[in-house]
Formats: sequence, C-alpha cells, structure tokens
Amino acid sequence: MTEIKATNVVWHEGHVEQATREKLLGQKGCTLWLTGLPSSGKSTVGFSLEHLLIQQGRLAYVLDGDNVRHGLNKNLGFSAEDRGENIRRIGEVAKLFANAGVVTITSFVSPYRADRDQVRKLHDDAGIPFIEVFVNTPVEKCEERDPKGLYKKARSGEIPNFTGVSDPYEAPEKAEVVLKTAEAKLEECVATLASYLEKQGLLSAP
Amino acid sequence: MTEIKATNVVWHEGHVEQATREKLLGQKGCTLWLTGLPSSGKSTVGFSLEHLLIQQGRLAYVLDGDNVRHGLNKNLGFSAEDRGENIRRIGEVAKLFANAGVVTITSFVSPYRADRDQVRKLHDDAGIPFIEVFVNTPVEKCEERDPKGLYKKARSGEIPNFTGVSDPYEAPEKAEVVLKTAEAKLEECVATLASYLEKQGLLSAP
Repeated sequence: MTEIKATNVVWHEGHVEQATREKLLGQKGCTLWLTGLPSSGKSTVGFSLEHLLIQQGRLAYVLDGDNVRHGLNKNLGFSAEDRGENIRRIGEVAKLFANAGVVTITSFVSPYRADRDQVRKLHDDAGIPFIEVFVNTPVEKCEERDPKGLYKKARSGEIPNFTGVSDPYEAPEKAEVVLKTAEAKLEECVATLASYLEKQGLLSAP
Repeated sequence: MTEIKATNVVWHEGHVEQATREKLLGQKGCTLWLTGLPSSGKSTVGFSLEHLLIQQGRLAYVLDGDNVRHGLNKNLGFSAEDRGENIRRIGEVAKLFANAGVVTITSFVSPYRADRDQVRKLHDDAGIPFIEVFVNTPVEKCEERDPKGLYKKARSGEIPNFTGVSDPYEAPEKAEVVLKTAEAKLEECVATLASYLEKQGLLSAP
C-alpha cells in the first residue's frame, strides 16, 4: 500500500471532458500493457504498433525502459520494493496519457501479477480501458535472442535477480491478448493488436 | 534501425520521429510551466487555455495537483525533499507528454527556482520547448481569494510550511511570460499564452 501524504489537496472540476478529447482525436484513450520476459519482443511489438497507428493518423505513444527508467524512475533500483514502485508510477503515467486520449503502449517486464493487477484496477476505477498483452515467448527463445547479452550476464551471476533466470515471472492469467512471438510473425502480432483495438471501438470517436 | 516491409506498412524499431508526430497533430509538443503562489490563478488559467486549445482542435493537457498529487505523487509530502521530488517527477512526465506532441500545461506552485531550472534543463537537453509562466498575483490578492480556505488554515497554523505564509516563494527571474491576474482579465491572460504559442510557431506543423 502506498501511504497518502498529500492531505491538503482539494479536487476541482475543470478538465476538458473525456468525450470532447476523444472526438477531437477520433479515438479513445487506452493503455496496452505489454508484459513478458526480457527479450520476449515487447518493445519490438510496441514500437511497430506505434508506427502503424501513427501511419493511420492515430496518436500512440510508447512508454518503455528508455524513456522511463532513465528519467522518471531513474531513482529506483531493482529491489522488490523499487520494482513495485516502478510499475506503480508507470501505471499512473499510462493512465494520464490514456486520459489525454492517447493510445498508450507500455513495454516493461512487469513480472509480478499483483503489480499489474493494481495498474488494471487504477484504470478500471477511472473507466479507462486497460488491455493486458502477454508477450508469451518461451524463455529458451528469449535466451537464444538475447540481443543485449543480459541472459548471459544473468547466467554468469553478473546480473542478480534477473527475471526468467534468478527471479520469477508470474504469467498473466487473464490477459486480453496473448502474443506468441516465437510462432507468429511480427506483422501478425501487430495486426492482432490493431484489430483488437478496432473491435473494441477504441480507434473511432464516441 | 531494422526495417521490415509488409504490404503498405513500413516497420521500424525505435520511437516514431518527433517531426512525424508533430505533422500528424499539426502542432509542436511543448511544456507551459505555470508557477505562482497558492490561489494565484494557475489552474484557472491552465484549464481555460486547455479548453481554448481543444476548441481550436489542438491537443492540450493539464497536469495539476488533482491528477498528479492524488496519483503519481501520492506518496510524497511537503518536506523540502519531497517537494523537490514532486517537481522532478512532474517535469519528467511533462517532458514525456511534450515528446508525444501534446501542448502540456503544468499547474503547480513549484516555489523553488532550482527545481524549476532543473525541469527547464531537462527540456533544453531534449530540445523540447519549455515556457515558464509566472502567474504573478500579489499574496494579499491570493489570500483574499483563498477559494479552498488554505491561507486561513496556514495562518492558524493548521497547515505548516505553506508557500507565501510560512514557506518562501522564489519568483522566476527569466520567465518567458508573466501574467498579472489581479490586473488583467482571465480571457486576456489566456489570450496572451495562446498568442505566445502561436508566435513561437508551436501551433503549426513543422
């Protein structure tokens, strides 16, 4: 539980209504939460989806390690507590982006079910669509890819607490979409997500 | 950058380029950083500008105490350290929003010059326009307004470390825009900001 310290804050009305914003953009803000092992292909899928949507005139934005871990969350490490706070902050920022009308794509290992469920609840409570996407790539395949040599370092003990090697990954039990990147092509994975957004009515104005 | 061509879609790894995003939105992402005493009128100006821009078909979004202090920063209090971290996180999130192409409006007291300068540097380093807006309302006027009764509580000692009463406010020395809400009408203040954005070329595609 996060302690609430900001007590002398008063809520006040004034934000542009969600529907006005969605009408302007011709889409509904939502969060696509990509979760999966390191090197499972989350970022590749996320960025490819972003490019596809932007080409179609949709506003999409990827939050990932590059723009979050080096900025907003640069004061967090990899302890269980910091991992929790990392995901909490990303969840809050994703919610703000989705509230602004953006198709928000997050790309983080986010290994713990409880953390992801908390982000889901945050969105549910605000009436913002949350789509959990399990990038389900077998660990052997991830380790075979290992573009950054992280699995190798984890196996040698150079990186401790590495998800999939020395730290657990709790697979989603109720993901809205499951992508098997070892079996399907990248284009198919991206098309699956775009089609899901379309079917949910998220790519048209209210 | 890896490119995979499939039908009419060009697949990229990596973020969508800033220019592509700006072309899509017909505007340039930037951060308007409103600073001033409590009850100086920051949020009123901020929300009014947001409404005006949205009416004009621009994508704008306000970050303020309502959507940040209750969410992302709910685990921060009002100590000097927590105030610093509060502004740091808001600066990082504003930068992300501006990077996504949004005209981002922040509305926080942000009393310390060093904190604001750090956010300015963050934007400068990323080549993202940062516009410091000093909502310059005399403390007597703010206290007279006091819509939330906060000055009263601060005077009675119920709220400690209250900016303008028991905590310092360091006025900007190089704000891009200064608004005197005690002398100018709300519409004039909002028009001043919209006009500034226009003149800087931020409301048109590159």
